[in-house]
Amino acid sequence: MVKVTESRLGTLRQKIKERKVEGFLIKKPQNTFYLSRCWAEGRILLTKREKFFITTSLFAEEARSKLSGWQIVIQKDSFEEAVFQICKKLGSKKIGFEASHFSFEEYRKLGQIKGTLWIPCPGLVEKERAIKDTEEISCIRRALRVAKATFDYVEARLRERVTEKDLAREAIYFLRKDADEEAFPLIVLFGERTSLPHGKPTQRRLEKNELVLLDLGAKIEGYCSDLTRTIFFGRVKKKWHQIYHLITEAQKDALHQVKPGVICSHIDKTLREKIKKAGYGEVFLHDSGHGVGLEVHESPSITFKSKEVLKPGMVFTLEPGVYLEGEGGIRVEEMVLVTENGGEILE
Amino acid sequence: MVKVTESRLGTLRQKIKERKVEGFLIKKPQNTFYLSRCWAEGRILLTKREKFFITTSLFAEEARSKLSGWQIVIQKDSFEEAVFQICKKLGSKKIGFEASHFSFEEYRKLGQIKGTLWIPCPGLVEKERAIKDTEEISCIRRALRVAKATFDYVEARLRERVTEKDLAREAIYFLRKDADEEAFPLIVLFGERTSLPHGKPTQRRLEKNELVLLDLGAKIEGYCSDLTRTIFFGRVKKKWHQIYHLITEAQKDALHQVKPGVICSHIDKTLREKIKKAGYGEVFLHDSGHGVGLEVHESPSITFKSKEVLKPGMVFTLEPGVYLEGEGGIRVEEMVLVTENGGEILE
Repeated sequence: MVKVTESRLGTLRQKIKERKVEGFLIKKPQNTFYLSRCWAEGRILLTKREKFFITTSLFAEEARSKLSGWQIVIQKDSFEEAVFQICKKLGSKKIGFEASHFSFEEYRKLGQIKGTLWIPCPGLVEKERAIKDTEEISCIRRALRVAKATFDYVEARLRERVTEKDLAREAIYFLRKDADEEAFPLIVLFGERTSLPHGKPTQRRLEKNELVLLDLGAKIEGYCSDLTRTIFFGRVKKKWHQIYHLITEAQKDALHQVKPGVICSHIDKTLREKIKKAGYGEVFLHDSGHGVGLEVHESPSITFKSKEVLKPGMVFTLEPGVYLEGEGGIRVEEMVLVTENGGEILE
Repeated sequence: MVKVTESRLGTLRQKIKERKVEGFLIKKPQNTFYLSRCWAEGRILLTKREKFFITTSLFAEEARSKLSGWQIVIQKDSFEEAVFQICKKLGSKKIGFEASHFSFEEYRKLGQIKGTLWIPCPGLVEKERAIKDTEEISCIRRALRVAKATFDYVEARLRERVTEKDLAREAIYFLRKDADEEAFPLIVLFGERTSLPHGKPTQRRLEKNELVLLDLGAKIEGYCSDLTRTIFFGRVKKKWHQIYHLITEAQKDALHQVKPGVICSHIDKTLREKIKKAGYGEVFLHDSGHGVGLEVHESPSITFKSKEVLKPGMVFTLEPGVYLEGEGGIRVEEMVLVTENGGEILE
């Protein structure tokens, strides 16, 4: 474990050096965990030789027990005051910070620290996180297996008059038997409500011959899964069968394009073109996919303008969807791992 | 409903005018909901005469169905591009923004919009939200009743060898019968682990004669509850009975000080002094309380340096706790409503 974090810190230190800053201040919880393997709430200040974990008395016991080799700083007056004391000791003049995670107001307060210049360095840790190691992929696979078992459990419990909320509640109860928690709020939608890509479960009851859309994921040791299934509860219009066929074929086409070196926008384009040709381009309301790891939405983005390049170890979703307002929608979402030679659907 | 949001928008417009800006850009989801009564993900640009709800195609259907009287803008290229188009149309030169919620990076992108100056205005909506109206208090009471019923349910199911995780899972299943979701991740801790103020449930099993700490809340229509109970499962050392007595007495003392016009730091001081005198000042690891509403932690802060002044309609927690590392801890948390003449424990 220590080896893993030391290697991650080493890579980050190299990037810090390239940016010509003397240190880097990290706020995002998934990033601090990635670098420390500790979920205690806190912020990291990394310098060439030292590593500080700045936290509050609330997390002092946890931090002390999990962070050997770190300098643990318990902030007293404020976070900025603690940072000031460290900067003063180190004599640091230029420090990078996570510009996408510190608010403008937090930046302003840091800016009041005399003698230190704050350099925005967005996305440094996120870029590292996009490529998963064996242990991370194993966590994701475990989270995926729980999600799949939950689908089976829910499908077996589909019944007339059940509400979206009750079904979601039953799914959560099952999912938490083997996972730490849901990766995100479950989406359980019936009938015409399936046209809402991010709809929340309501008291809507299921009737015969309706669409059922389930989008769910589990979290294990911080790592997420994210899958979507659309189920026909009884008979549905022929149109829905055609759309289902269309989007799963589009998904296959996109999967075949996955391999190291390919630009993400090309994957999006492949998937989108097929849906466009069938006349549903305008109602494929979202991107083709997104990376999954410690966050359920992370790098790489599978969008029409994404310039990210696929690399072995990346994990992302492919999730074509067609949404007809007032009628319903279909989405199918799988998770894909970029291998040395291509891409495989994660099982 | 429209009346409520119009009144809230009116108050905010007054504040915008005082700040000498022509508009105000709002990002925080609880703030956009507070002003629009719509949970669709989006941002609000409020000007003297107009109100824009800027969202993506993912939430277009929901926004259109819920936001009458609003100008709904579906962003195409990016959020900043959508804002730019509106600013150009309006000819706005100075616009305030939620400086505590927009990241530095988002601010930087907004800054590239030609002809518009961005003025940091943190906390405007939060300050309004601190004072609850009758309908909001009624939602909070409902969320509180679900939390209390969940405590009863969990207490009745305490048994030897149950794990913290399983008990949390059972609590969630029960809570979601009548609430939309948990207000925050449940804290369920046994034995020596009760000394972790924000510990997460683990596979730790309950044994006879141990402490049990439960900290949970429900969310109904966006409004949260937040309560903590410490239970003696069997016989525990006399010391724990004494600490329990001490902190509930400190809580009562603080409650008696609650009335409009009182400064929050005074409430914290009253509670803290009593615990200090008993020799536990150093191990009361956190603040005395926090406001609860659309967020589980919001204004007012009941801390030693809080200068906020209590007003009728404010709702906050009083949560003394004593934590002995390696041994265990006790916390008792109630929710208090500031009335015209004093304060009452919410039931």
